[in-house]
Amino acid sequence: MTGWLRVVGLGPGDAAMQTPQATDALAAATDLIGYMTYLDRVPPRPGQARHASDNRVELDRARHALTLAAGGARVAVVSSGDAGVFAMASAVFEALEAGPPEWRTLDVQVVPGISAMFAAAARLGAPLGHDFCAISLSDNLKPWPVVLHRLTTVAAAGFTIALYNAASRARPWQLGAALDALRPILPGCTPIVFATAVSRPEEAITLATLADADPACADMRTLVLIGTAATRLIDRPGQRPWIYAPRSHPPAAP
Amino acid sequence: MTGWLRVVGLGPGDAAMQTPQATDALAAATDLIGYMTYLDRVPPRPGQARHASDNRVELDRARHALTLAAGGARVAVVSSGDAGVFAMASAVFEALEAGPPEWRTLDVQVVPGISAMFAAAARLGAPLGHDFCAISLSDNLKPWPVVLHRLTTVAAAGFTIALYNAASRARPWQLGAALDALRPILPGCTPIVFATAVSRPEEAITLATLADADPACADMRTLVLIGTAATRLIDRPGQRPWIYAPRSHPPAAP
Repeated sequence: MTGWLRVVGLGPGDAAMQTPQATDALAAATDLIGYMTYLDRVPPRPGQARHASDNRVELDRARHALTLAAGGARVAVVSSGDAGVFAMASAVFEALEAGPPEWRTLDVQVVPGISAMFAAAARLGAPLGHDFCAISLSDNLKPWPVVLHRLTTVAAAGFTIALYNAASRARPWQLGAALDALRPILPGCTPIVFATAVSRPEEAITLATLADADPACADMRTLVLIGTAATRLIDRPGQRPWIYAPRSHPPAAP
Repeated sequence: MTGWLRVVGLGPGDAAMQTPQATDALAAATDLIGYMTYLDRVPPRPGQARHASDNRVELDRARHALTLAAGGARVAVVSSGDAGVFAMASAVFEALEAGPPEWRTLDVQVVPGISAMFAAAARLGAPLGHDFCAISLSDNLKPWPVVLHRLTTVAAAGFTIALYNAASRARPWQLGAALDALRPILPGCTPIVFATAVSRPEEAITLATLADADPACADMRTLVLIGTAATRLIDRPGQRPWIYAPRSHPPAAP
C-alpha cells in the first residue's frame, strides 16, 4: 500500500460547509489524526483508526502522521476551518522539514476548508469585503510585543482584522489588552464582533463597539472581528444589523 | 412565492472544492446572476434564468439581484472563491443600504466559499500559516498611495500578503510598482508566488524571489503571494518545493 497524508480543513462545523474534497479524503483514509474535538465531527467508519490527541501537541501529532504515512498508511490530519490558517498544515511542514529525507518524497496534500473568519463574515454580511488581516492573538509562539505591534499597525492602516486564538483559559488577559491598545487608534464606534462557533448548534454572535466591547464575550471558540472607521452597519427591523466593508476607500486619502 | 437572495462563493473552480451549501443554493435558485466567466462554471438547469454580465458593473448587478428577489425570485449571485473577499457580497450590501427600505426585510444569505488565497496556499504548502493580510492591488476604488502604504506597512510588520486583483489589461503597471516598493523592506530572497487559476485546467504556478520576480507572470486570474523573511522552502526531489510559514515568530523580537 502506498501511504499518503492529507491535511484536511473540515470547515467551521456545519457539514454543508465541508467540501466534497475533504469528505472524500476523510473517507479514503485508514487513519485519522487530530484534536479530539475536531475528530468528533467526523462520522466513525468501520476499520478506520482514530488517533485523538490534546490540543497542544501539534508537532508530535504531525510527526505521528508523517511516520504513519511513510509506513504505508493513508492518513488524514483534521483541522477545523481551513487547515492552513493557524491550524495543522504549518506544523506538518515544520515536522516534514526537520524529519528524515524520505518524508520529502511522501504524497502530501493540503485540503482547504471554509475558515472561521469567512464563515463568520458570511453570517454577518461582508465585513471582510475590503483589505483585511488575520492575526493570532496567542503569545505562546510569538512575543506579546510583536502581537501588539502588528495589531496596532494594521488597525492604523485601515485593515479589518480577524483575531484568531483571541482567548482561552490559559490566556485570559490578552484580548482586553489588545482592545485597550486599539482604543487610541480607532474610533469608539468601530464595530467589534464576537462570533462563536458559527454554524454549530451553540453559535452565538455578539455585536459591540470598541468603546463598550467586553473581552469576556470571547472563549476559545470565538473569532473576533474588528472593523474599521469605514465599516457600515445596516439596521434591519427585528434582526441583527448587516455589517459590511464598502468596496471604495473614502475619497480623502490618509 | 417568497423570494430570497444568496450570494454564493463557488470556490476556486474545481467542483470538489465547492461546498454542498453552495451547490444547494444554486440548485434552488430561479435566477442566477454573475460575471459570465463565473456563471459558465454552473451547470445549466432547465427553467433557471441566467443573467450574465460584464465584470465591471457590480452595483448594477447587485441592484438587479435585489430587485428580482424583492419581486419573489430566488436569486443566486455567483462569485468565484469566497463571496465576501473582493467579490459580490460587499456590492450587494452597498446596494441594499442605498435601496428602498423593504430590501432590509429580504431573506439574504452569504454562502462562503474556498477563497483563491486558501486554494493557492493549500497547493503550495502552508504559506499563510501565520499572520497574513489580503490586499486588493486595484486602484479603481482606492487611491494608489493608500495601496502602497498598506502594502509596505504590513510587509514591514511581518505579515504574509495575498494580493488580489494583482494585474489586468487596464492595470498593467501596478504590480511592478508594488514589488519595487517592497524591495527596500524585504530581503531579496523573500519568496513570491504567482498562482494562476488554481484547481482549474489552466492552473499555473510560478515561484520567484522578490529580487527576480517578473510582474508579467500575473494576469487577472493570478493570486500573488508575498512571503516574509521567515517563510521557509523545503526542497523536494523532482518537485516544486513546499512553502510554509513557521508557527513560531523568530526568537529575536523586532
